[in-house]
Amino acid sequence: MFVLGIDPGLTRCGYCVLRADRHRSVAVAMGVLRTNRDNPVPDRLAELWIDLGQLLDEFELSAVAIERVLFQTNVRTAIGVAQAAGVVMAESARRGLEVVEYSPNQVKDAVAGYGSADKAQVQEMVQVLLGLDAPPRPPDAADAAAIALTYLAFNAGSAALLGKASRA
Amino acid sequence: MFVLGIDPGLTRCGYCVLRADRHRSVAVAMGVLRTNRDNPVPDRLAELWIDLGQLLDEFELSAVAIERVLFQTNVRTAIGVAQAAGVVMAESARRGLEVVEYSPNQVKDAVAGYGSADKAQVQEMVQVLLGLDAPPRPPDAADAAAIALTYLAFNAGSAALLGKASRA
Repeated sequence: MFVLGIDPGLTRCGYCVLRADRHRSVAVAMGVLRTNRDNPVPDRLAELWIDLGQLLDEFELSAVAIERVLFQTNVRTAIGVAQAAGVVMAESARRGLEVVEYSPNQVKDAVAGYGSADKAQVQEMVQVLLGLDAPPRPPDAADAAAIALTYLAFNAGSAALLGKASRA
Repeated sequence: MFVLGIDPGLTRCGYCVLRADRHRSVAVAMGVLRTNRDNPVPDRLAELWIDLGQLLDEFELSAVAIERVLFQTNVRTAIGVAQAAGVVMAESARRGLEVVEYSPNQVKDAVAGYGSADKAQVQEMVQVLLGLDAPPRPPDAADAAAIALTYLAFNAGSAALLGKASRA
């Protein structure tokens, strides 16, 4: 199965497509969809939407997992993040894909084992779980990978998530 | 020209299509796009998107005017409003339409003449400007009409907005 993880954002939207079977998870696509902050917001949302559509076209996804937008210190950013998340969720749901939102704490808990893990710990666990030589870069892509892994933890069982059996 | 005004929301999204010429503005479609709050948010956003698409198909619009999402007391609502606004802006921009955001105060100022006008005053002015027998109902539709009128005030001159010449 293929799962897309999304760390939503208007300027930078992290994505990661995982291919998962019973034994391991492999990142088959990972990166950041960027829009230019000098452009009008509606145009940026349309651009994000088109880029996302290409990603959804490319892989036969089972599900899209996305980080839930919560209020941050920067209120201006939260609006843009929510707008971007809205586009991602609408397009994914319109295609009939399962779409699941996870809070940041759910992601930390699923991937690093506790909800108060810091970003570096989560990224390190992403590296381990996906068998990479280093934490994925940029961080937005690593966050998206953590979100996709969270979906697997909730839906495919921790063995599939952790791939520990295959690493042992 | 046809202008679409949008009062964004996930549960209730007000809309109003105005046909405007040099002398007057007429509301040719007005109402509320509703989604069921019992359904998952991604499905609701997809539904809103489809409903909006039908509206955009129906009229040869010149522009879409939408109320800017600001932070309200109810933070949970603001997220849903921003997500709905994101879908509306992305779809409109993707179709090549001009999309303009106005703050609530800009709308009040353009329609009622001052930025601190209350909702009832704005709705009353919408009634007058559109030559209706009563303020449009429901209020979400009236708010959408006010937003479309704001676009005309900024872009077609106050004479077209006010239609006062034709009413004198």
